[in-house]
Amino acid sequence: MDEQQAWLNDEEREAWLGLQSLFTLLPGVLDTDLQGLQGITLFDYHMLAMLSEAPERNLSMTDLAARTSASLSRLSHVVKKLEARGWVVRLQSKEDARVKIASLTTKGWDVLVQIAPHHVATVRSLVFDSLDDKDVKDLSRISRKIVRALDEEHWILDPA
Amino acid sequence: MDEQQAWLNDEEREAWLGLQSLFTLLPGVLDTDLQGLQGITLFDYHMLAMLSEAPERNLSMTDLAARTSASLSRLSHVVKKLEARGWVVRLQSKEDARVKIASLTTKGWDVLVQIAPHHVATVRSLVFDSLDDKDVKDLSRISRKIVRALDEEHWILDPA
Repeated sequence: MDEQQAWLNDEEREAWLGLQSLFTLLPGVLDTDLQGLQGITLFDYHMLAMLSEAPERNLSMTDLAARTSASLSRLSHVVKKLEARGWVVRLQSKEDARVKIASLTTKGWDVLVQIAPHHVATVRSLVFDSLDDKDVKDLSRISRKIVRALDEEHWILDPA
Repeated sequence: MDEQQAWLNDEEREAWLGLQSLFTLLPGVLDTDLQGLQGITLFDYHMLAMLSEAPERNLSMTDLAARTSASLSRLSHVVKKLEARGWVVRLQSKEDARVKIASLTTKGWDVLVQIAPHHVATVRSLVFDSLDDKDVKDLSRISRKIVRALDEEHWILDPA
């Protein structure tokens, strides 16, 4: 590699400090906020939200892993934990017994309905209240460019 | 709160899925990459880098906590861990015995010099190779707007 090219220039360094500060701070604040509500993590919440939006509130474990940017082993651990709370059940696909399904229960749905307004209000106050329409579009564009570099088949790049 | 205002609109949802996918994926990939080099985390790296840029490679624990977006208790834990590897030492300020200083050792500096080119190349390939000059400026602006909502006295908003 060309040594001149190796380092970040001033503008890149500014952007990198901004992005790194953002991902060091924001998930922790959202986590703490949710833990105070129902003892769930941001990852748990996102998983429940993805199930709630799926047809019949079911997703295969593979699709759910994609939608939560998680490995199957991490996801499996979290699904077991939320199954113990009665919010999710694991099923076998009727079409293909090898396919494992995660399904949101009525109890899980009720929990999500209860906490969603608070969580969305937090996201709005910490993220969107500070951004104008152009910022929101720019953020969509830039985040997708980076997500594509991380995983060119990531589901948000081609939502069904 | 007005119920109509509570939910994210389509553009906000797109941006939020992008940002959330980004902060779910990127830190983990960078962590794994660094762990493979010297068994250090992204947080460890950032802490060493902040010390390396400070006058005499020293920062008070309070300033270092600010520069790493960390609580003092988290930082203290990490400094102890890296002190055990001989990369950092803790000192008392000569001016004020109540002020604790973290100082990068020569060994810590050498480790950083050794791994920095690889880490920067990874950040470049995952983040900056996909972004044009406008994206980089937009990312600086947007990330600072959100960081300001999280902590209006955050150090990146007013770098010395």
